[in-house]
Amino acid sequence: MSALAPGATIGILGGGQLARMLALAGAGLGLRSHIFSPYADDPAFEVCAQKTLAEFTDEEALARFASHVDVITYEFENVPAATAAFLDARKPVRPNSKALALTQDRFVEKRFLQELEIETAEFADVADAGALARAIAKIGRPSILKTRRFGYDGKGQLLIRDGADLATSFRSLGGAPCILECVVPFNKEVSVVAARGLDGAFRAYDICENFHEHHILSRTTAPADIRPETASHAIALARRIAEAADYVGVIAVEMFVVESNASERLLVNEIAPRVHNSGHWTLDGAVTSQFEQHMRAVAGWPLGSPRSHGRVTMDNIIGEEVYNWSRILSEDGASLHLYGKREVRPGRKMGHVTRVEPRTPR
Amino acid sequence: MSALAPGATIGILGGGQLARMLALAGAGLGLRSHIFSPYADDPAFEVCAQKTLAEFTDEEALARFASHVDVITYEFENVPAATAAFLDARKPVRPNSKALALTQDRFVEKRFLQELEIETAEFADVADAGALARAIAKIGRPSILKTRRFGYDGKGQLLIRDGADLATSFRSLGGAPCILECVVPFNKEVSVVAARGLDGAFRAYDICENFHEHHILSRTTAPADIRPETASHAIALARRIAEAADYVGVIAVEMFVVESNASERLLVNEIAPRVHNSGHWTLDGAVTSQFEQHMRAVAGWPLGSPRSHGRVTMDNIIGEEVYNWSRILSEDGASLHLYGKREVRPGRKMGHVTRVEPRTPR
Repeated sequence: MSALAPGATIGILGGGQLARMLALAGAGLGLRSHIFSPYADDPAFEVCAQKTLAEFTDEEALARFASHVDVITYEFENVPAATAAFLDARKPVRPNSKALALTQDRFVEKRFLQELEIETAEFADVADAGALARAIAKIGRPSILKTRRFGYDGKGQLLIRDGADLATSFRSLGGAPCILECVVPFNKEVSVVAARGLDGAFRAYDICENFHEHHILSRTTAPADIRPETASHAIALARRIAEAADYVGVIAVEMFVVESNASERLLVNEIAPRVHNSGHWTLDGAVTSQFEQHMRAVAGWPLGSPRSHGRVTMDNIIGEEVYNWSRILSEDGASLHLYGKREVRPGRKMGHVTRVEPRTPR
Repeated sequence: MSALAPGATIGILGGGQLARMLALAGAGLGLRSHIFSPYADDPAFEVCAQKTLAEFTDEEALARFASHVDVITYEFENVPAATAAFLDARKPVRPNSKALALTQDRFVEKRFLQELEIETAEFADVADAGALARAIAKIGRPSILKTRRFGYDGKGQLLIRDGADLATSFRSLGGAPCILECVVPFNKEVSVVAARGLDGAFRAYDICENFHEHHILSRTTAPADIRPETASHAIALARRIAEAADYVGVIAVEMFVVESNASERLLVNEIAPRVHNSGHWTLDGAVTSQFEQHMRAVAGWPLGSPRSHGRVTMDNIIGEEVYNWSRILSEDGASLHLYGKREVRPGRKMGHVTRVEPRTPR
């Protein structure tokens, strides 16, 4: 299938802030968006004329949705496999179902990286409490037990310390299939936000350096404070991943940087098959935002320039921090983004603020 | 009335590309928009969940619209005075009705500038063909006859050359009240795009230099190639106008630059009480776009930084030029904007493209 024409409709699964910013970016390019979400209050519904409020298992709604759109994308990796397959039989789903399958399951993801000879934290499959004991014997403590599926922002994770009871630990994550990972003594966390086009073109933004609080991304700075050769290597790893998955769209690859002797080692931690929180700075700090870049890619269009406008800091606005909106608006040079969420909850991402330090201050 | 809270709704009169880009910018700030337009195909309807499809004279629809919004703004200066008054009695209208009255009528506008001791082209009121003869006697030929109201993109204008029959000329503009202006031998056309906040703060973008083809804006470059003291003077004139009108929102003031001896004279040509085509470059070339700036102002929020990212060129995409979209998308560093208009017509503004030359090329 060739490139869509302006005026075409992109179907987006999910209606959160990522879908909202994708739809806004698409509108700037003359693309329509059709949001599919089960949650009536979702903020993306506010910015689109076309919408479907239905469960992801509602095949009638999915079929109708597919008939109204030209291509389908998503804002989160936990789209049910059956939903993706049902839709893919009707309209192109981008990124493809392989990317979804890879990133929905931490074990499958790690094995995929292993096959690509990309270094990760040491890991082991943990199907039950007995497997956990064998995994601990291999990997040691402290280590991190994570559910294979549906984890985000530190949810579905547990640090296994010396003396922790393994059966209790396993049960505390609901008895779901898990993966055990060794704790990486990393010096920095970075991410590569990049895009691959339908034509195979690959373009990466400045490497993002990420700072978490309570397992939630708190701050991203770009470019990351790493060696130029480490940055090039990080981009090469992201490209290898994207090419192996025959990927189309924006991809984010989270990595640990481990300083050893005079070099920096990179271990891939996680792949997100979508626009990513650590790329939000591109809205204000790059020629083409990650949201526009994703819409270009899924439309089969040429990728835009990822060139940045300078050194950038992006801070997430979490929970009640949103009540600082007025102070942020008053700060010269700060760019405020709010997601239009009606309810403030602890830990909820309500918006973000970007500050760009131009290369040549005036 | 104080500042709106995030989540508040801005009512926008008109549903064209300016309203669309205002709504998109508002969404980035967590503001909702409600579009009021009589035209079902208007592109702004595509990007808002709240809409009213009705005539501007439909008081029932206007009252309902007013009840659903917190403040009202508009994308065009020809909002009927009765509509503005009806709405203003219910919710704040920003910019105010004085700004509307001033800019709807070229004669009133010129008189207002005269009172502010701001230089304009010589002009005369032309109520009928007899008045046209007296005006010609005063101003000479060639001169330009313009309808006092409803002119845009060169419509409602006629060049009066030597030998033209005055009665025929007057009738050819429909017999509407007119103004005669002398032809200014200008060297450059510039515009000041600026904003005034509810608190009286005033911030201007880099001066825009404008190039027209067939009376339609074709290209804007910023900053304009004028002397620094001329730029400062231009901004001071725009500020004087905004303050005299107790203006809130983005304002655009078009000016002629006449080089005389070693200095540059400025003559104000036209005031637009709204975001302006010559300010579209701010979407890609400035920290705060004119659309975000307008939404901030009408929400009673602090103005954002107008700092630019470098030297900028904005080209309008008119009529069939839109079929070049794919070539523009392929050009590295070009930012394409399409307005989502379904029908291509000669002279119709379909989109624009911005190119920013960074201050420090990488």
